[in-house]
Amino acid sequence: MPSAALHTVHVPLEGRAYDILIGPGLLEGAGERLKAQFPGRRFGIVTDTEVARAQLPRLTASLDAAGLNHATVTVPNGEASKSFSRLNEVVEAILAARLERGDIIIALGGGVVGDLAGFAAAVARRGMDFVQVPTSLLAQVDSSVGGKTGINSPHGKNLIGAFHQPRLVLADLDALATLPPREFAAGYAEVAKYGLIDDEAYFFWLEENQREIFEGGPARAEAIARACAAKTRFVLADEKETGVRALLNLGHTFGHALETATGYSSRLLHGEGVAIGMVLAHQFSASKGLAPSQDTGRVIQHLKAAGLPTRIADIAGDKLDADELLRNIAQDKKVVRGALTFILTRGIGKAFIEKNVAPDEVRAFLGEALKA
Amino acid sequence: MPSAALHTVHVPLEGRAYDILIGPGLLEGAGERLKAQFPGRRFGIVTDTEVARAQLPRLTASLDAAGLNHATVTVPNGEASKSFSRLNEVVEAILAARLERGDIIIALGGGVVGDLAGFAAAVARRGMDFVQVPTSLLAQVDSSVGGKTGINSPHGKNLIGAFHQPRLVLADLDALATLPPREFAAGYAEVAKYGLIDDEAYFFWLEENQREIFEGGPARAEAIARACAAKTRFVLADEKETGVRALLNLGHTFGHALETATGYSSRLLHGEGVAIGMVLAHQFSASKGLAPSQDTGRVIQHLKAAGLPTRIADIAGDKLDADELLRNIAQDKKVVRGALTFILTRGIGKAFIEKNVAPDEVRAFLGEALKA
Ligand SMILES: NC(=O)c1ccc[n+]([C@@H]2O[C@H](COP(=O)([O-])OP(=O)(O)OC[C@H]3O[C@@H](n4cnc5c(N)ncnc54)[C@H](O)[C@@H]3O)[C@@H](O)[C@H]2O)c1
Ligand SMILES: NC(=O)c1ccc[n+]([C@@H]2O[C@H](COP(=O)([O-])OP(=O)(O)OC[C@H]3O[C@@H](n4cnc5c(N)ncnc54)[C@H](O)[C@@H]3O)[C@@H](O)[C@H]2O)c1
Repeated sequence: MPSAALHTVHVPLEGRAYDILIGPGLLEGAGERLKAQFPGRRFGIVTDTEVARAQLPRLTASLDAAGLNHATVTVPNGEASKSFSRLNEVVEAILAARLERGDIIIALGGGVVGDLAGFAAAVARRGMDFVQVPTSLLAQVDSSVGGKTGINSPHGKNLIGAFHQPRLVLADLDALATLPPREFAAGYAEVAKYGLIDDEAYFFWLEENQREIFEGGPARAEAIARACAAKTRFVLADEKETGVRALLNLGHTFGHALETATGYSSRLLHGEGVAIGMVLAHQFSASKGLAPSQDTGRVIQHLKAAGLPTRIADIAGDKLDADELLRNIAQDKKVVRGALTFILTRGIGKAFIEKNVAPDEVRAFLGEALKA
Repeated sequence: MPSAALHTVHVPLEGRAYDILIGPGLLEGAGERLKAQFPGRRFGIVTDTEVARAQLPRLTASLDAAGLNHATVTVPNGEASKSFSRLNEVVEAILAARLERGDIIIALGGGVVGDLAGFAAAVARRGMDFVQVPTSLLAQVDSSVGGKTGINSPHGKNLIGAFHQPRLVLADLDALATLPPREFAAGYAEVAKYGLIDDEAYFFWLEENQREIFEGGPARAEAIARACAAKTRFVLADEKETGVRALLNLGHTFGHALETATGYSSRLLHGEGVAIGMVLAHQFSASKGLAPSQDTGRVIQHLKAAGLPTRIADIAGDKLDADELLRNIAQDKKVVRGALTFILTRGIGKAFIEKNVAPDEVRAFLGEALKA
């Protein structure tokens, strides 16, 4: 058995408990660890072209050294791979490799690979076990934890998928060495989000340690572990997102609308959309008299220091349109019978779910925000 | 609320309990029943071209009369619709109709529609509720009960799917009036199967009442209800098919191999393959000295009287090949690490799971069976 990870977050879901391990060298130790936890199994690795180049050799070397049988399927990197046709391709590759129901799918990559591979594992042979090996910061602190898997539809993001929990999550800190800095910053938006939702103390700690987190000191591991623990709390409270788990969507309703408007292109990364969305959620709440505007200022300052955009105007390219953004929001899956659901806030660490937001109010607010 | 159904089989799955209603006129009563059970929901009907012609107007008239909002998506009839591309089409149609997470998918049709629509419901918006309205005998006694949903892969049948339980099953006896007689007989193979697995008394009762069941007397409703109750017992004992539920595959390993060899064409319907497969399972068991050969005779006689094929030679067209059948069996998902798993029997009502069948033994047996 390889040495213990730096941090372990246990996810005690009934009958499907698993560990999230956070630390350096986890890819090198993966072979021995998987062999011990899943004796006699074969492994199907799903990854993307970029991660295949940057990180796959570390994983396959480790599986080979442990004598584990494995096959790999690689999809193009980028959000466009969360499609029906890629799902089809990955599932057929799993079947072509003759992986059986007891075998294991490994998702090696960012949130795109995790969501796609997890969904493929959920439906191949009506459900195979899978292990998340998140290699982007966003995937390490958010998408690899909690069992939401899925792909996009022309009708909207993440509209097709399954709840399928991983059997193990290996968040290797060394993998982040090859992650482009812009992607690291985007992932950081989700880290900050946990503080903004319900943990002002964590947000304060992030403000104090932001520099060390970006430089890769010990605070980075702690920031990731605390983020995973926060996400785990929400997952345990509400696995299928029928209630409180929706708080994790802070900044996401605005963020998705911006991503849709920019065509999921490199104009705006997911985490960047979330960053702007969180600022908008604070501003919208402040405009309704719900939250103190100095908290908005603190949020903007922190995200700016992370190198993140904080205003719609920070998005490069053509100016966006309030009506189009509102249409995108209305198409979003969190619309229930005409009224819009938003995550609003009473200040840092005080987010709440508001199910009765009037579309007109949002349009007016967006009109103002677009002038900023 | 419409009047009570003739028979009700309750499926007490923890947290997801549902009823199977069996009786005449259930389609006419569907609108009021659905309105009472699912107030305020919208409905997405999935059906096939044949059933749309023969039965859909009864359902839509009933939903309209109850004032329920509904949309319909129709796929071509036949096994080929259990494909990735049809799944894609159905899911996108559900999203295009703006059906929300709380809305209901209705599968109106045979096993093909039930498996496809159930799988679409499992993955659209990461899981929507669905109601089975089985219109073939096979679907009423088998595929609509138990939550297995899925599609086929070029690598084999039902290799992609999900476990997703319906919220309600409406088995309308009147729907069977338009079912082609050959399809009725094929479904009957699955009825007989429950007797052969573990209920000799039921098989005996079927022998006594076969004529009335085919003519549509009261015994038909009872036969269906008892079959649903039998299937329910297995589902409750082993929802995810990790053990005893595999007994339901009696006749299916041989049957699937025959279906594959005949290209899932009208040469051989699923239930016809199961009928021949059950006879083969009895003969194979008898050849191993496990089962008395007079039981095989009783099985053959009963299935023949139902108008079902009982020998490989009964399949029209080119002669099949033992090696090809064995290859098909080996590709089947019930293969675990080289050894073949078969459902064998010690006689009528005494089936059991045998995990260590040698491929050579099967080849030799099939060589003989092909001569018969
Ligand atoms: N399932 C969930 O709960 C959940 C939660 C949040 C986000 N998501 C999803 O996650 C996705 C975004 O995830 P993401 O930001 O990781 O995107 P991503 O997977 O596209 O990764 C970002 C880019 O970084 C590259 N990359 C990743 N790791 C690398 C490494 N170590 N070295 C070099 N390059 C690397 C990738 O190839 C890609 O080009 C979105 O689709 C979003 O919907 C899911
Ligand atoms: N999910 C499960 O547990 C399970 C169990 C057994 C079989 N199955 C699946 O079920 C499928 C076979 O089901 P099936 O035999 O019902 O096939 P089917 O759905 O193709 O129906 C057979 C034919 O009868 C027609 N039909 C159905 N009802 C009719 C009606 N009332 N009037 C006129 N025409 C009607 C259909 O259009 C079709 O042409 C296979 O794909 C098999 O894998 C699933």
